[in-house]
Order: sequence, then structure tokens, then C-alpha cells
Amino acid sequence: MAATIPDSHRDLLEGPVIVALATLMPNGNPQVTPVWCSYDGTYIIVNATADRQKHKNMIERPQVSVMAFDPQNPFRYIEVRGTVEEITAEGGGDSMNELSLLYTGKPKRYGIEAPPREISERLLYKIRPTHVNYAG
Amino acid sequence: MAATIPDSHRDLLEGPVIVALATLMPNGNPQVTPVWCSYDGTYIIVNATADRQKHKNMIERPQVSVMAFDPQNPFRYIEVRGTVEEITAEGGGDSMNELSLLYTGKPKRYGIEAPPREISERLLYKIRPTHVNYAG
Repeated sequence: MAATIPDSHRDLLEGPVIVALATLMPNGNPQVTPVWCSYDGTYIIVNATADRQKHKNMIERPQVSVMAFDPQNPFRYIEVRGTVEEITAEGGGDSMNELSLLYTGKPKRYGIEAPPREISERLLYKIRPTHVNYAG
Repeated sequence: MAATIPDSHRDLLEGPVIVALATLMPNGNPQVTPVWCSYDGTYIIVNATADRQKHKNMIERPQVSVMAFDPQNPFRYIEVRGTVEEITAEGGGDSMNELSLLYTGKPKRYGIEAPPREISERLLYKIRPTHVNYAG
């Protein structure tokens, strides 16, 4: 059963807002990292590389939560809990370029602002929303 | 075993940066909400009210993660995983006033920017760091 993203808060998931992605460690504890994010109307989509802990977590335990708040008004926020339904390299590079352009104004893929370890394969994680909280 | 907060990233935990707090839902899935945060040299301290899901989560499952990134440079971030060791109402009101002053520039406790449901008791959650990740 998919949850609905309200139009009032959809912008927070479409960038260039940095969102917090929570995954589950092998011992069940939460892990949180900042990620870029987009929303295609069905899936919340985040990017990561295959050498990261969050990748391992999402492979083994697909339950995640994404939270974004408005930098201008932190009381306006949205949390989307969901399940990673698809992990794909397809479009990873293009998507990364698009996101880089959106978030940094620079189309280049591996700029100085980019996180380390770019040599690894960049993947897209498609999260189907199952529960949505929002305020503000 | 406590983890060390690096001096280079300590500022991100001392406000007025909004941090992402991840807790565990009854089914083990992660939940993430934006919270104010402070650091007293030992504990990461967050505020919440007793009627919130995150309160119930932290009472039942004290494993949490707090993540903060620099709004000016999101690649500078810190994640602190830890355990809620103490929950107290003591100083909750004063702390809330101090945090409000720090985060909004207004000492008043229940300003228009304040989250809803202020009638509930405000509590402090003291998180002992057990694992720290940072970058940037």
C-alpha cells in the first residue's frame, strides 16, 4: 500500500534540499547519512555507491526512512518511510549529473564538492513510500 | 565505550543546526524527525515531548542516531550513533528556552515557530555516543 506525498511538501523531496536517509545496521540500530534526493511521482530516489554501509544496509534490510526539512523553516518537514524496491545502476551517472546540477549548479559529476570514493559504481535506490508524516 | 566527537565537527551538534534524529519503530523500522540538539561534552542532548512517537521509541528502544550537516557545506557532516541513557524533565523548560534563543533568536518558549502540542511535558534525552562518522 503506497502512501501519498502531499503536494505541499513535495518540493522538499525534489531537491536541492539535502535529506536524511536512515537505514538499519546489521545489529538493527539506525544509521543516518545526508543524501541527495529526487521524487518521480512514485518512488523516492536516492543515490549511493556500492561500497557504502548504507548500500549494504539497504540490500539486506530494505526498510528505510527519508526526512527533509525546509532550510528556511525547519518546522516544515516531511518524513517518508518506505521500502527499497529497486536498486539499479541504470541512469546512475546521468542522474548524478542532474542532481549535481540541481544541488551545486555544476553539471560535472566529480567536482570538488563530490563525496569521496567516486570510483565505485553509483547506484539508484528506488524507495516506495509506505508511511508519510509532515508538518508546517 | 564512548566515542569521541571531533572538535572539527562539534559545532554541528551545538546548534543552531537542525539535526536528524533516527529512532526505531516498534516493528524495527527507522523513524526520522528534525530536532534541536546540544552537546555537553559527554551527551548529545535532544528535546521532545512525551506524547511523540519518538519518545515511545526511545523509551522502548534506546538505540538512536543523530546526524547533522553544515547548511553551508552539506559534505561536512557528522553522524553520532548512541544510546539514550537518561530521560529527564529536569531543566527541560530552561533548556527549551535556551535552545529557542539559540535557534530562533527568541527566548520565548512557545513562539509561533514552536512545534505543536507544547502542552505535553518537555523532556531531555541524553544520548551517549557509541559510534561517530564524519566527513568534510
